[in-house]
Amino acid sequence: MMISGKEYRAVWLENGTIFAIDQAALPGKFKIIKIRKWQEMVRAIKNMTIRGAPAIGAAAAFGMAIAPELEFEQAYRVLWESRPTARDLFTALEYMRDAKMKGKNLAEVAQEYADKVVEICKKIGENGAPLIKDGMRILTHCNAGALATIDWGTALAPMRIAKQQGRKFTVFADETRPRLQGLLTSWELSNEGIYHFIIADNAAGHLMRRGEIDLVITGTDRVARNGDCANKIGTYEKAVLAHENGIPFYIAAPSTTIDLKLESGDLIPIEERSEEEVLNFAGKRIAPPGAKARNPAFDVTPAKYITGIITEKGIFRPCEIASSFNKL
Amino acid sequence: MMISGKEYRAVWLENGTIFAIDQAALPGKFKIIKIRKWQEMVRAIKNMTIRGAPAIGAAAAFGMAIAPELEFEQAYRVLWESRPTARDLFTALEYMRDAKMKGKNLAEVAQEYADKVVEICKKIGENGAPLIKDGMRILTHCNAGALATIDWGTALAPMRIAKQQGRKFTVFADETRPRLQGLLTSWELSNEGIYHFIIADNAAGHLMRRGEIDLVITGTDRVARNGDCANKIGTYEKAVLAHENGIPFYIAAPSTTIDLKLESGDLIPIEERSEEEVLNFAGKRIAPPGAKARNPAFDVTPAKYITGIITEKGIFRPCEIASSFNKL
Repeated sequence: MMISGKEYRAVWLENGTIFAIDQAALPGKFKIIKIRKWQEMVRAIKNMTIRGAPAIGAAAAFGMAIAPELEFEQAYRVLWESRPTARDLFTALEYMRDAKMKGKNLAEVAQEYADKVVEICKKIGENGAPLIKDGMRILTHCNAGALATIDWGTALAPMRIAKQQGRKFTVFADETRPRLQGLLTSWELSNEGIYHFIIADNAAGHLMRRGEIDLVITGTDRVARNGDCANKIGTYEKAVLAHENGIPFYIAAPSTTIDLKLESGDLIPIEERSEEEVLNFAGKRIAPPGAKARNPAFDVTPAKYITGIITEKGIFRPCEIASSFNKL
Repeated sequence: MMISGKEYRAVWLENGTIFAIDQAALPGKFKIIKIRKWQEMVRAIKNMTIRGAPAIGAAAAFGMAIAPELEFEQAYRVLWESRPTARDLFTALEYMRDAKMKGKNLAEVAQEYADKVVEICKKIGENGAPLIKDGMRILTHCNAGALATIDWGTALAPMRIAKQQGRKFTVFADETRPRLQGLLTSWELSNEGIYHFIIADNAAGHLMRRGEIDLVITGTDRVARNGDCANKIGTYEKAVLAHENGIPFYIAAPSTTIDLKLESGDLIPIEERSEEEVLNFAGKRIAPPGAKARNPAFDVTPAKYITGIITEKGIFRPCEIASSFNKL
């Protein structure tokens, strides 16, 4: 992604040091952090300095690549437990362990994994771009852009490609409380010169009912065998509202996010994060003293609300996922 | 309402001065402001220092009561234009003008109006309380409590009465971006000792789908003849989700909020407030430089999603509103 005229990835490895864009500091501050130990990578993933299913996968791969030989199994286990919902984390860790057993160079393998993610995301963009017609108004939730995926994004990739192909459209970015990842989306869209508005999560339904949204595209953290998709909390709400208002609802996902071992979305573990994320806003306590909060970080959108899943292999109906990806 | 052992109303008149709880300062700070000119009341309503449809009505009545004789018509017009969506504002202004024409004491009339609102809200509480069974988990959106209605609240009144009647239940309060009125709800529920959790607006659908919500009650700013209800942005989303998940969805409203002249909710003017409410938080910019926002402050929930409307006259199905309130 281009940031102030320079090309960046969300996470990269250079001479044994991992560099990453600090996503917790954005959009206020653009900052690169350095990670020299796998334990620091665990922290960065847990506190969402690095976030987004495909980016977490690649970051974990880099984390494994810098783990000392003797700590490899421990790093594998602790990274595995850093966040529970996104499938890519486990895909990447299994990929790295497999490479280790085959005696491969882990830095090279992690780099290959990250390059593959970027290539896949660009392909998702190419496959999804034809859905975006001139003049469309597109809703997205959370951030499924370059930051979340090393580069290109999943949900945002079709928008980047459509923009390159010269189409004009408007994006509505849900701000996505409690962590406000919609602001990251706004930051990315600004960098790409894509016209957009930030809206409160509450406003999406109203805009749909008023006929001001033509298409919804979001990312996903895990796709189950039956096509159910887990994604950032609030995605389910938007999917139901799109369905109710006859608006196509697409999920964009690399195949690394598909979990064919899971029969249905109801089996996807949903992370509950600290209530402090709800009780505070931008570092400041906003709730009354003694107030409590619930903070589920993800929800599951049943397949029946999903028009299609945009992957690097093409666009599939949710019910086609199992048969199509078994074969591939 | 009891605040630190003392009884308060949201707005009141004392010897020609209006006193009000500063709702923009809550829940961080409990502060009483003084209003000595009707122009100050216009500002307090516009910037939401005083908010909530019934409270705005009573506040406007008090504002008219302190307006000098020569400025009466001007105060009427400017207050009328202070906010567009809530019906109560217009009900109260018409009530005051009518009293003026009859040569009544306006301070007394405004006081009567406010007392009437409080009495009506308590009755809404009594009528709605039987809906709340022991062990229920109830979702509410925005703040339709004592702060929004002088005392008792509309949506929160049934909860206060059910609590007094000894029932145990849990409330989930949507935080209600962008203005976070859910925190006012949390503050009120804390004062009343009602067990509750604050949730991000995004989390309500997930909890519904998981079977963790049994009942939804919200307030409304205007009820149209066909039973459509305007309320705080996001209410429509919750109503659709409740419908999809088979959860009863109630609106609580004094009859002053019913607008029999309006055929349908689509005719209710929806206020678009400043984009700064979305782009900033607590005076600090959170959005990237140059980012824009859309900020509709209300939405309309079509009657088909509403199980019942709890009024001081009883609970009505939306389709019964026109015939029932024509007669009354």
